Amino acid sequence: MHGKRLSRLAQLMRDEALDGLAVIPGPNLFYLTGQSFHLMERPVVALFPIDAEPVMVLPAFERSKGQAIPYPIRLFTYDESDASRRPAFEAAIHHASLGKRRLGIEPLRLRFLEFSLLTEASPDTCLVAAGEVLARLRQTKDEAEVQAMRRAVQIAEEALERTLPLIRRGMTERELAAELVVQMLRAGSDTELPFPPIVASGPNSALPHAVPTNRALQAGDFLILDWGATYQGYISDLTRTFFLPPLDAELAAVHQIVLQANQAGRNAVQPGATAGAIDLAARRVIEAAGFGPAFSHRTGHGLGLEAHEPPYIRQDNSLALDPGMTFTIEPGIYLEDRGGVRIEDDVLVTQEGSASLSDALRDLRAVA
Amino acid sequence: MHGKRLSRLAQLMRDEALDGLAVIPGPNLFYLTGQSFHLMERPVVALFPIDAEPVMVLPAFERSKGQAIPYPIRLFTYDESDASRRPAFEAAIHHASLGKRRLGIEPLRLRFLEFSLLTEASPDTCLVAAGEVLARLRQTKDEAEVQAMRRAVQIAEEALERTLPLIRRGMTERELAAELVVQMLRAGSDTELPFPPIVASGPNSALPHAVPTNRALQAGDFLILDWGATYQGYISDLTRTFFLPPLDAELAAVHQIVLQANQAGRNAVQPGATAGAIDLAARRVIEAAGFGPAFSHRTGHGLGLEAHEPPYIRQDNSLALDPGMTFTIEPGIYLEDRGGVRIEDDVLVTQEGSASLSDALRDLRAVA
Repeated sequence: MHGKRLSRLAQLMRDEALDGLAVIPGPNLFYLTGQSFHLMERPVVALFPIDAEPVMVLPAFERSKGQAIPYPIRLFTYDESDASRRPAFEAAIHHASLGKRRLGIEPLRLRFLEFSLLTEASPDTCLVAAGEVLARLRQTKDEAEVQAMRRAVQIAEEALERTLPLIRRGMTERELAAELVVQMLRAGSDTELPFPPIVASGPNSALPHAVPTNRALQAGDFLILDWGATYQGYISDLTRTFFLPPLDAELAAVHQIVLQANQAGRNAVQPGATAGAIDLAARRVIEAAGFGPAFSHRTGHGLGLEAHEPPYIRQDNSLALDPGMTFTIEPGIYLEDRGGVRIEDDVLVTQEGSASLSDALRDLRAVA
Repeated sequence: MHGKRLSRLAQLMRDEALDGLAVIPGPNLFYLTGQSFHLMERPVVALFPIDAEPVMVLPAFERSKGQAIPYPIRLFTYDESDASRRPAFEAAIHHASLGKRRLGIEPLRLRFLEFSLLTEASPDTCLVAAGEVLARLRQTKDEAEVQAMRRAVQIAEEALERTLPLIRRGMTERELAAELVVQMLRAGSDTELPFPPIVASGPNSALPHAVPTNRALQAGDFLILDWGATYQGYISDLTRTFFLPPLDAELAAVHQIVLQANQAGRNAVQPGATAGAIDLAARRVIEAAGFGPAFSHRTGHGLGLEAHEPPYIRQDNSLALDPGMTFTIEPGIYLEDRGGVRIEDDVLVTQEGSASLSDALRDLRAVA
């Protein structure tokens, strides 16, 4: 499996005229090595040269984790003194023959720490943002990856159904978020969740990225749950919207519109369609209903080892979809100080069209 | 509270000849604004100029979160198109008068993404690693912060005692880790844990940063639990070592040594003592017993809003401790392919000496 991934990486680097790729702890390193390293104040950097054996710089006490990587990789370790880091980086870059060459880096991950160590150890190496290589490396999933994502969706859906009967008026958003987490772990999620659940009630549901507060659930609230589980590193990311009776008729109408937008977005998914066209399909429904400005974010984002990864489902993305791509469809309408609605599914592009990995009931359900 | 923090920041910037500080989502932004922003592919950057009103660049749909910051801060938003980002950064840097000046950045956080946006928007701004300013800003805790940490410790300890009776032979490390998480949430932890618990059994306990695996607990195992809870953003980080009978006499002797090292480290803590002296106090015990090379990491690290933050308790750190500093004392001995022992407490420097925030039983206990 890793051999296949490494050869695809080499091909992608050739396409982008890169001589190597530098990767720090996170999903790309996990994808390429199968090992989980922590991102911490001690730098860990793997270098994948296009034409030589990979190398890795890491703290001495993590050597055994480097040794567990299932292919030959030369390890360069440093100890607990700051001074020991630079020689390790110099030796690694030298061994990988990356001195005067173009080294791709992760623009959304590489920190000033590693950036400085790499440039100080090898001033003649040209560091290049390799977003495109990384996107193309991981955005088409293989069968095993899709299976893990299906399981992550099942776990999240099972957790939802176990949580809903426990919702009571007076419960705080934070309490409800904790209960959702408990149920995901009981249902089999990895302990490292993709993100802490969003529980947004009443006026807070008008904030797309709300953080759970101590607000107690009240009669008449709309309630957005946005949650996901992790299975073997792969994640799910779902949103459903509920209400506490009595039902607010205007928000109920908004829910209908968002449901139609969600469906229109999912229906538009097929190989060859552009990411932008999917966004537009969902967005048009909301614009036609007169709520265009209240849908203040893109329609979705890719997911897999990360909760937000390519492909991004937004209007200006002309990427043509390929079978194996996985992403969310999550239109929403947010009415400031009033409330909001979002319905989010995880979708897979198939040879024939698409499949929704998630099928938790999308209808507006009463809770508490 | 935030006024006080901002004026201390200004003083620290003067000390380090910085004209401003750039902060991205994470603990520093939370500390300075009281608001939680997500670190994602859409950049969020707050700029704190030494002599002008703070500014923030953020996605338009997160504007309301920026508005919740409890002091005047000018917001510059961009929309879902990449092209809209640069003008927002240019306007923000201009408004903050940071054009040809020295701007501090977070070396362990700032990503190539924000680095590129800042340097493209303002090529004449000099970006400087501000690790020292950030360390000094947050490493001395106030009373409210210490109270939150005490609560985070209590939650972790309560979760441990509820988890221990559930441990059985045949249970996997991953199952046990999930149970620990469940118990922390039930005991009142924030949903965002500081780190996924480490559960390392048998030979895996010889890996200081082990990730829980599907290995089933067996008779004769040593078992390291390293876990922590979060309360109001503040965290705890504890380790205790257990065994499944029958007891391995050599590892039991090792446990005794580590316990003495833990105690020696804690006893050495007092205002004016150096971080290096604390490391040495713990390390000497282990070296004297002949296990020096098997204690392959530093004695501890600061903690607060982060699980690893200054002050670092290692031999080469000459920092003198001040009342209000909080850090771990966590000596360990690791015997490859055999097993390991680590005992970790969270310690506060007081006016008189020190206090351990944690007091879960440190003795070697049998489980299962």
